[in-house]
Amino acid sequence: MTSEAHSMARVFTLHKTTPTGRSGTLETSHGTLSTPFFFPVATAGAMKGLSFEELLSVGAEVLLCNTYHLHLSPGEDVIEAGGGLHKFIGWDKPILTDSGGFQVFSLKNIRSISDDGVSFRSHRNGDEHFIGPKEAMHIQHALGSDIIMCFDECPASTAPRQEIIEAVDRTLRWAKVCKQEHEKLKQERGTSPLLFGIVQGGLEPDLRKKCAEELIAIGFDGYAIGGLAVGETEDEMIAVLKEVCPVLPENAPHYLMGVGDMGQIEQAIALGIDMFDCVSPMREARHGNIWLSNGEKLRMHRSEYIQDHSVIDPTSPSPLSKKHTKSYLHHLMRLGERYGETIACLQNMAVTLEAVKRIREKI
Amino acid sequence: MTSEAHSMARVFTLHKTTPTGRSGTLETSHGTLSTPFFFPVATAGAMKGLSFEELLSVGAEVLLCNTYHLHLSPGEDVIEAGGGLHKFIGWDKPILTDSGGFQVFSLKNIRSISDDGVSFRSHRNGDEHFIGPKEAMHIQHALGSDIIMCFDECPASTAPRQEIIEAVDRTLRWAKVCKQEHEKLKQERGTSPLLFGIVQGGLEPDLRKKCAEELIAIGFDGYAIGGLAVGETEDEMIAVLKEVCPVLPENAPHYLMGVGDMGQIEQAIALGIDMFDCVSPMREARHGNIWLSNGEKLRMHRSEYIQDHSVIDPTSPSPLSKKHTKSYLHHLMRLGERYGETIACLQNMAVTLEAVKRIREKI
Repeated sequence: MTSEAHSMARVFTLHKTTPTGRSGTLETSHGTLSTPFFFPVATAGAMKGLSFEELLSVGAEVLLCNTYHLHLSPGEDVIEAGGGLHKFIGWDKPILTDSGGFQVFSLKNIRSISDDGVSFRSHRNGDEHFIGPKEAMHIQHALGSDIIMCFDECPASTAPRQEIIEAVDRTLRWAKVCKQEHEKLKQERGTSPLLFGIVQGGLEPDLRKKCAEELIAIGFDGYAIGGLAVGETEDEMIAVLKEVCPVLPENAPHYLMGVGDMGQIEQAIALGIDMFDCVSPMREARHGNIWLSNGEKLRMHRSEYIQDHSVIDPTSPSPLSKKHTKSYLHHLMRLGERYGETIACLQNMAVTLEAVKRIREKI
Repeated sequence: MTSEAHSMARVFTLHKTTPTGRSGTLETSHGTLSTPFFFPVATAGAMKGLSFEELLSVGAEVLLCNTYHLHLSPGEDVIEAGGGLHKFIGWDKPILTDSGGFQVFSLKNIRSISDDGVSFRSHRNGDEHFIGPKEAMHIQHALGSDIIMCFDECPASTAPRQEIIEAVDRTLRWAKVCKQEHEKLKQERGTSPLLFGIVQGGLEPDLRKKCAEELIAIGFDGYAIGGLAVGETEDEMIAVLKEVCPVLPENAPHYLMGVGDMGQIEQAIALGIDMFDCVSPMREARHGNIWLSNGEKLRMHRSEYIQDHSVIDPTSPSPLSKKHTKSYLHHLMRLGERYGETIACLQNMAVTLEAVKRIREKI
C-alpha cells in the first residue's frame, strides 16, 4: 500500500457496492458523512432562501460555499480573522468550498488567462482580481474548508475539441500545482483538509479518460467530475459518467458537480457517484416550482391554486408543507412574500435530501 | 351593571394599576393575552422578514394582519373558503385585523369619499374597490379575526382643524354603523369577535375628548387611539395620550396604534395603554438598524463592522444574535443575503417583545 492509498483509505471507506450504487463514509475535520449525499449551496456563506436553522431541520449534514464569492466579499482575510468559515457563518458541520474556477470562467469578466491563473473583474464592482491554482489553495486554506477543490478550467460544453484539449492540459498542470501547494499549506498550518481533483474533458471520452488517469497519478483524496450539467443532454452526461466512473479509484469518493435533478442523481449514484451539489432545488423553489415527495412538480404561480385549500404535500419531509395549503403558498408567492420562499425552498431542499437519503438507505 | 359593562368585564380583566402602567388579561376566541403586549405585523398574512416559526421562537403571542391587503389579495372569499384567516395562514393564536381605513386614506389612491365609505384604486393593479363601515365589518368577520377594528377616517396630522372635525364626525357616524353591523354579523355567524372603536381628533384636545366620549357612549370591547405616530412630535403624542387615556373606561383595553419606539411605548404604558403595534422593528431591521437589548442601536451597514467579530448582542433574547457576529451580519446585509434580514428582524422583534414583557412583569 502506497502512502497515497493509505491516505485515501483513512478518508473514505467504501461499505457496499450494489447495482443501485455505492455506500460509504467520508471522514472530514468536522465529522463523518454517509455517502451518497447532497450538498446544499450556501454561496456567500448563507442559503438564498433558508436560514441554517431551517436547513438543519430537514436533515442537512454538509454545506458547499463558493470561494469566488467569499473571496470578493468579505474576503478570506476577514473570515480567517473571524476564526475561519465555520465560525464566521456559524455552521459546525463539514464544508466544501469550490475553487472559484467555475465562476471565474462562467461569469465572463476575464481579462487574461495565463499558466499562473486568471485575471478577472468582480461581477459586483468591477475590481480586478487574480486567482490561479496557488491562490485557490491559499484562499480555501484560509477559509478553513474541510474539502478543498483544485482550481480547474471549465470550458463551455459547446467548445471545439481543441479548446477542450487545452482546458484539460491546463487543468492537469494546475492540479499538480494545487497538490503541491496544498501539501505545503497542510504542513505549515497543521490542518488536514481534503483535496479533490476535478476531471474535465467536455463530451470527449478520450479526454475525460486521460484527465481522470493523470489526476489519479497525481493522487487526490477524492475526484470530482466537472463541466457537466452545462447544457448537454442527459444522454451525453450519462455517457461521460459511464466513461469516467470505472476509471476512478474505488477507495476514493466520486463527486458529480452541479447536478440536482433527482432522476439524474439516481442514475449517477447507480454508476458510482457519491456526492452531488446543485443550486436548482432552491432556485426552482424561488421561481415557484415545487417538487413534491411523490415526484410531481407544481407551478405555484398558476391560478388553479388560488382556491386550492389542500396541503402542499401531505407526505412531505418538510413540516411547513404538511401544514400550509397550496392556496396560501400561491398567495404568498404572488405577492413576493418571503415566507412563501421559505415554504417553497424548504420543500424542495427537504425532498432532495430525503430522496438521496432513501437511495442511500436502499443500497 | 349595564349589558355593555358586563360584556366588557368578560373581555378584559384589569389586574393592577401602578405608576408604571396597567396589567390585565384580554380574552379572545383564540386564547387569553396578558396586557400590555405588542402586535407583530403580518401585513398580508406573513411577516416581512421572518417565518412564523421564527416569530414564535421569540415569544410572539398575537398577530396583526391588514384588512386592506388581504381584501385585495387573496380576498376574504378565498380566506373564508380556506377556513378563515387562522387556518389559511397557519396561526392559531389571536389575530387582530385593522379596518383598512389607514391604508385607504394614506395610500392616496382615493376616487371619492361619501358617508357610505371610500372608493379607491388598488396600489397593486389599479382595480377599483369600495370599503365603508359595513364592508369593513363584513370583510373582518369573513376573515375570522379575533379583534375587529372600526372603519375610521385618519386625517393627516398636519390637516387643518376643520378637516379633523369632519374626520371625527365621520369616524363617529361610521362607528355606529360598525357596531350595528358587527352585532348583526355575530348573531348570524354565531361567533364572538371583539370590536374596538378608534379615537381620532388629531392634535386637538377637545376633538380627541369628544371622539372618545361618543365612542364610549356607543360602547365597544376596547378603544384604540389612532392617527398618532404620523409625523407629530413625541411631546404632541404624549399630550394626546394624557388627554384621552383618563377618559377611556378602566375596564376596557386601550390600544395605541402604530407606535413601536420603546421609549414611547414605556411612556404610553405608564399613561394606561395596554396594546401596541408597529412595523418599525422589522422595517428598521431590514434597513440594517439593529436594536440591542441594552438599548443601543447599531447601523450594520457601517464599515466599522467588517472586522468586528464580536457577537451581535450577547444578552439578546434572540438566539441568532448570541451566536452570530457583527462581521457576519454586516457581510450578509452588504450582499443583501436574506439570512441577514432574518438575523436582524429576529433581533429587533425579540428585543421589542422582551422589553414589553419586562415592563409587564414589573407592573
